[in-house]
Amino acid sequence: MKRFMHTYFVRVRYADIDQMGVVYHARYLEWFEAARTEMLRDMGIVYKELEQSGIYMPVIEAHCRYRKPVKYDELIRVKTVLGEVSRSTIRLEYKVQGEKDETVRVEGYTVHCFMDKSGKPRRASQELLSIFQNVQRP
Amino acid sequence: MKRFMHTYFVRVRYADIDQMGVVYHARYLEWFEAARTEMLRDMGIVYKELEQSGIYMPVIEAHCRYRKPVKYDELIRVKTVLGEVSRSTIRLEYKVQGEKDETVRVEGYTVHCFMDKSGKPRRASQELLSIFQNVQRP
Amino acid sequence: MKRFMHTYFVRVRYADIDQMGVVYHARYLEWFEAARTEMLRDMGIVYKELEQSGIYMPVIEAHCRYRKPVKYDELIRVKTVLGEVSRSTIRLEYKVQGEKDETVRVEGYTVHCFMDKSGKPRRASQELLSIFQNVQRP
Amino acid sequence: MKRFMHTYFVRVRYADIDQMGVVYHARYLEWFEAARTEMLRDMGIVYKELEQSGIYMPVIEAHCRYRKPVKYDELIRVKTVLGEVSRSTIRLEYKVQGEKDETVRVEGYTVHCFMDKSGKPRRASQELLSIFQNVQRP
Repeated sequence: MKRFMHTYFVRVRYADIDQMGVVYHARYLEWFEAARTEMLRDMGIVYKELEQSGIYMPVIEAHCRYRKPVKYDELIRVKTVLGEVSRSTIRLEYKVQGEKDETVRVEGYTVHCFMDKSGKPRRASQELLSIFQNVQRP
Repeated sequence: MKRFMHTYFVRVRYADIDQMGVVYHARYLEWFEAARTEMLRDMGIVYKELEQSGIYMPVIEAHCRYRKPVKYDELIRVKTVLGEVSRSTIRLEYKVQGEKDETVRVEGYTVHCFMDKSGKPRRASQELLSIFQNVQRP
Repeated sequence: MKRFMHTYFVRVRYADIDQMGVVYHARYLEWFEAARTEMLRDMGIVYKELEQSGIYMPVIEAHCRYRKPVKYDELIRVKTVLGEVSRSTIRLEYKVQGEKDETVRVEGYTVHCFMDKSGKPRRASQELLSIFQNVQRP
Repeated sequence: MKRFMHTYFVRVRYADIDQMGVVYHARYLEWFEAARTEMLRDMGIVYKELEQSGIYMPVIEAHCRYRKPVKYDELIRVKTVLGEVSRSTIRLEYKVQGEKDETVRVEGYTVHCFMDKSGKPRRASQELLSIFQNVQRP
């Protein structure tokens, strides 16, 4: 199965660095957020409009493995891949690499559910599911 | 005139440090926020409840002077002083010092207006003004 | 086996809230950091001094499950428990709960290795291991 | 005098929004940092390399005026203008605007000094000053 993939570039800021001189570990979750928002946009889903239509996709699980440090002013790539999709959850997988360098520095995943504004779980609409499924043809 | 003063303690985290090995300059604005929220609580104003009653006090101006660095794991004090209060704005002034050390590391101020949920400016209620004025007796 | 446990309190700030009106999911990793630093201090280990002695304990893995939202101005508890300890890694487990409320809102863990300043893995000293083992008596 | 100007684009993330549903006020200082780093790069100064050569330009003063809110998922422009330059300090001025909209949402400035790694003030080299002065021809 071909899995939908998106690459997001981000320049490491002064603000991202911690006491150890490398990117603070929580920052990757912000980059994952930015990366998946752009991935969705690429697939035709503007997350802001999804919210306006009453569908929210909060993170219910997040995981990171930190393999190699990322340093100040590096231009890095966050590669996002659409993982398992069901009517109740969706999984996204991330790999952080240097601009031209294939070493995986950090990898992780997030799992999202679908809910309405009040926080009640709901199932993804057929329309939404179709978008996800159409980009993952065998 | 005696001015109302509040001291807020904060422990510097790994996350607060930047590439230079000192607290990242934007972080102080977060501490100022925490400090003024506790100062208001001390005066009997729970900011969350103020919002629930329809009054918001957004920052319309912020200023910082960075005199000496603050480092990882320091326990620092943020001293907040209630400045000028009018029906349309309020000013708060901050000094950041070490736990036991009188040197001012950072100082700054924020100016806040009063507005409703829709973002329309409104004047502070007499009740709110009284609280502010009562703590600043000559 | 009795496992060493520490409770860290944190007041939710304006800055911690996201577009959904709840704590932004990456923020918990910062609170986990603050919580484990205080837990270590409680055990007699000042992390800053550990670093000065040449031992670093970077996060090599982090995981979060978000069960229930946390909101603005809540005073929450982060309960940290010392998990598995070996000569090469240490695991810490976290539960986030309201001030008086036993519902687990968020839970997670972090795994740390031991390394020197240059980033080379090293084994924990016997002294350090003893501290960890002494607080976990059967 | 023509003043050197640079435009930096940034997409507003979920993480940037606060309890009020607009960009948290401290976040602008991070964007100013990113904007001036890119402006310097445009002028031929890679800030990372400047640091490696022993010259640091820490923020010694920062100011913001918040005029209109910025919201989630907006693509905004940060226009940076090189202000007054002397041998001991440099001033940068920022305006935040929507992607296509001329309304100034936020404006501010930062003042930077020159120092060495130990934190001792030093004067800018003639070479560095020349770069700044060459981009500001009358």
